[in-house]
Amino acid sequence: MGTNWEELKTRLAEARAVEEAMILFEWDNETLAPAGAMELTAKTMERLSGIYFRMMTDPRMGELFESCREEALTPEQQAAVREGKKKREELAGIPREEYEAYSGLTARASAVWAKARSMKDFDLFAPVLEEILSYKKRFASYRAKEGQALYDVMLDEFEEGFSMEKLDRFFHQLKAEIVPLIKRIREEGRHCPADFLEGDYSEEKQEKLGRFLAQYVGFDFERGVMAVSAHPFTTALHNRDVRLTTHYDRWVDHSIFSVIHESGHGIYEQGIGDSLTGTPAGEGASMGMHESQSRFFENMIGRNRAFWEPVYPEVQKLFPDQLGNVSLEEFYRAINRAEPGPIRIDADELTYSLHIMIRYELEKGLVAGDIGVADLPGLWNEKYEEYLGVRPKDVSEGVLQDIHWSQGSMGYFPSYALGSAFAAQIYAHMAEEMDMDGLLRAGRLDMIREYLREHIHRFGKMKTSRELLKETTGKEFDPGFYIDYLKEKFCRIYGLDGE
Amino acid sequence: MGTNWEELKTRLAEARAVEEAMILFEWDNETLAPAGAMELTAKTMERLSGIYFRMMTDPRMGELFESCREEALTPEQQAAVREGKKKREELAGIPREEYEAYSGLTARASAVWAKARSMKDFDLFAPVLEEILSYKKRFASYRAKEGQALYDVMLDEFEEGFSMEKLDRFFHQLKAEIVPLIKRIREEGRHCPADFLEGDYSEEKQEKLGRFLAQYVGFDFERGVMAVSAHPFTTALHNRDVRLTTHYDRWVDHSIFSVIHESGHGIYEQGIGDSLTGTPAGEGASMGMHESQSRFFENMIGRNRAFWEPVYPEVQKLFPDQLGNVSLEEFYRAINRAEPGPIRIDADELTYSLHIMIRYELEKGLVAGDIGVADLPGLWNEKYEEYLGVRPKDVSEGVLQDIHWSQGSMGYFPSYALGSAFAAQIYAHMAEEMDMDGLLRAGRLDMIREYLREHIHRFGKMKTSRELLKETTGKEFDPGFYIDYLKEKFCRIYGLDGE
Repeated sequence: MGTNWEELKTRLAEARAVEEAMILFEWDNETLAPAGAMELTAKTMERLSGIYFRMMTDPRMGELFESCREEALTPEQQAAVREGKKKREELAGIPREEYEAYSGLTARASAVWAKARSMKDFDLFAPVLEEILSYKKRFASYRAKEGQALYDVMLDEFEEGFSMEKLDRFFHQLKAEIVPLIKRIREEGRHCPADFLEGDYSEEKQEKLGRFLAQYVGFDFERGVMAVSAHPFTTALHNRDVRLTTHYDRWVDHSIFSVIHESGHGIYEQGIGDSLTGTPAGEGASMGMHESQSRFFENMIGRNRAFWEPVYPEVQKLFPDQLGNVSLEEFYRAINRAEPGPIRIDADELTYSLHIMIRYELEKGLVAGDIGVADLPGLWNEKYEEYLGVRPKDVSEGVLQDIHWSQGSMGYFPSYALGSAFAAQIYAHMAEEMDMDGLLRAGRLDMIREYLREHIHRFGKMKTSRELLKETTGKEFDPGFYIDYLKEKFCRIYGLDGE
Repeated sequence: MGTNWEELKTRLAEARAVEEAMILFEWDNETLAPAGAMELTAKTMERLSGIYFRMMTDPRMGELFESCREEALTPEQQAAVREGKKKREELAGIPREEYEAYSGLTARASAVWAKARSMKDFDLFAPVLEEILSYKKRFASYRAKEGQALYDVMLDEFEEGFSMEKLDRFFHQLKAEIVPLIKRIREEGRHCPADFLEGDYSEEKQEKLGRFLAQYVGFDFERGVMAVSAHPFTTALHNRDVRLTTHYDRWVDHSIFSVIHESGHGIYEQGIGDSLTGTPAGEGASMGMHESQSRFFENMIGRNRAFWEPVYPEVQKLFPDQLGNVSLEEFYRAINRAEPGPIRIDADELTYSLHIMIRYELEKGLVAGDIGVADLPGLWNEKYEEYLGVRPKDVSEGVLQDIHWSQGSMGYFPSYALGSAFAAQIYAHMAEEMDMDGLLRAGRLDMIREYLREHIHRFGKMKTSRELLKETTGKEFDPGFYIDYLKEKFCRIYGLDGE
């Protein structure tokens, strides 16, 4: 064995191999595995996570993290050490049996959630959610600093430095500006007709279009694949194997924008530097920064009129019966209609962050103990009525619509709203440096992707989301860009005067 | 920790979890993974196999295998201990670095083989094959008993107790009886027209038919999935997750019989007892016994006239343009046409074992050193000309047609011929106990599957193939059943007098 760093590198790579196996099992569970496999495969995943846990918490690993600091390491290696150490410390604080039981639980939970959702029966899922919540709180308590609220610990896991205090302010500002705008649009009675987006859009052609769009925005199918799952997601084994899923229904824009969204995540993962991939620093900087890239492609690019100028005629050719007589302007307005609905993943750009706000408020209450699991379906519906003016017709389009809690992701949702805000700030800056509309009209998506790769993707976790934002845009995080962007765009689309 | 057995069980289950991860990666590589992922994923698999290797060769594991013998174990547990110990000893004889390098090599080799095949360039694959051969010989030498030939060691891995001596006799007998029969058919100039099996059979409908047939013969899609790969295969994570692949081309019978064949393997895996699955005894008894089940379903069942009586009208409905005017008798004769060709997996039932004999002779020579890797393409073609009267037009339908060597499977091929012979012996016995044609006509495939499950599948590796054959049929292995079966069937189909 050579230096301490070399030994550490080998050990981290072995732990990563087990982690990749778990990622592959998760992917497979969501996209392909037979229904009857669930119980036994959950045990396999439990065992793999136990092996991973032991590798990461091995005392020798702790020694190596300390001792290799004395060696001359590249910045990439330093980042791998820092992030590996962080992962180790998170795990080392959890008793192994709890960690394994929890992993087995979440491996089973997604299928329970899917069943509960399809049977529209929250009670099926409630006991599992109760258990997951209890584990998440216990794990957070192991990591909590003196006096730190448990939900702040969870938030920090996804977005370092964005605590409840900051998020309360962020959502307050959004609520103050966006809720009135939504009301104004509704009261003015203006409408963007979109009925032509619903119809007999064959799955086969939607898939063809999806693959075309993914590639067009910059996703590389030499290093990635696309499949179908109940809830679209992106995952990566390494920067040469990045995987998207989508879903198909009668609304063609659902799959179009879910594919462009997931492609944004995928492009980020494919852009992570070769010297980082496979190391603990070979991931996106944060969940919010990850989401900023998916939202950037979905909204700033994919819902941009200039983007569709060269592409829309091709879409018309693919769906002549449905879109042959629909003009670009009509299509553009339809894909930008702002109409509150019950489903987050189908939400428009304007109302999206209010869906997140609802989840944020509920999670906050759940973790603090102010809200019980049994209260969720009712509170969910009340909040939807209050903020969005819609009431889910059942739990499948209410509290059971998202997979996240079944996967143990709590404190994750706020990153979605932060991501949108990051994306708006990055876009505003890029528009000063480049002729964005011109590039989109010319189909030069590669220029846009390369800019993001150069400034953000390649760094993996070498920098935090705040550092990346500061270095890319020259400014600290400022939600004002997001709010200005939404107001300008939707006042224009709905023909309202700006203030 | 409780008893030694409990500790051993836990350790074996953990090693199995890593093994299942490797199985899933292999499946994924063949069916889905992006081309660019190969190099990095091969490293991941190399690391996983290193972890597996360390777990299995841990000295504590050796102690446990010895000490748990004193405990009162069920027959299933005893089988798990015996088979686990065997696996451990095979690995423990190989230096870890060699084992890992070899695993990495085979992880990469399938892609090299696929490329060489598609480019029809044997030289691309030759160096990799050379390396694999050298590893396989070295590994065999570690296990060889005093004076034992290396190829016998390899054969024993797949089919205990079937050495070169036995196989030479078996193939000699086949050659003496079958080569003349093939000649007779050719000389009589009789023909089973089958041109209607080739045509525009859409992939979508072939898939629909394949799924129907798999289910019809007894494959359970609650516990299994089906996908597409270059070379059809079956793999299993456990008895609740069994995976088949198939391939589609212009000949509809290719996919029909590849699906029924793989379903036979899959039914075996799904039938392994719950107390065995996931343990070292939770696999098929041997490669030959596994192949007997796939051949049984493919040939004795799937190429049986009675099988198609209830099914063929449905196939006609699915393909009215291609088969609407083809009678059951014509279809039956077409799917049983015996026409020597260059491709093993497309070979008919009669000529199939000669394809195997060629591979057996070449492997034997390769391992003994009488044949060099560079000689393979030429010798391959010569033997095809000699035994089958056909000459492959290039290496893609010659020496590069099979994936096996790229996966390090040497000594595996003979199991295919043995499997056919086992299947014929089992079928002959079942036909004495049950009205097979009657069951097939009534669509009672479940009765056939249950018989095989009861007598063979559920035992996993608790019994050897010879024991299973003896206990099921009441007789020792006797290739005469196979030869009689082939002669009776093909004389009947081609209207020749039997002797």
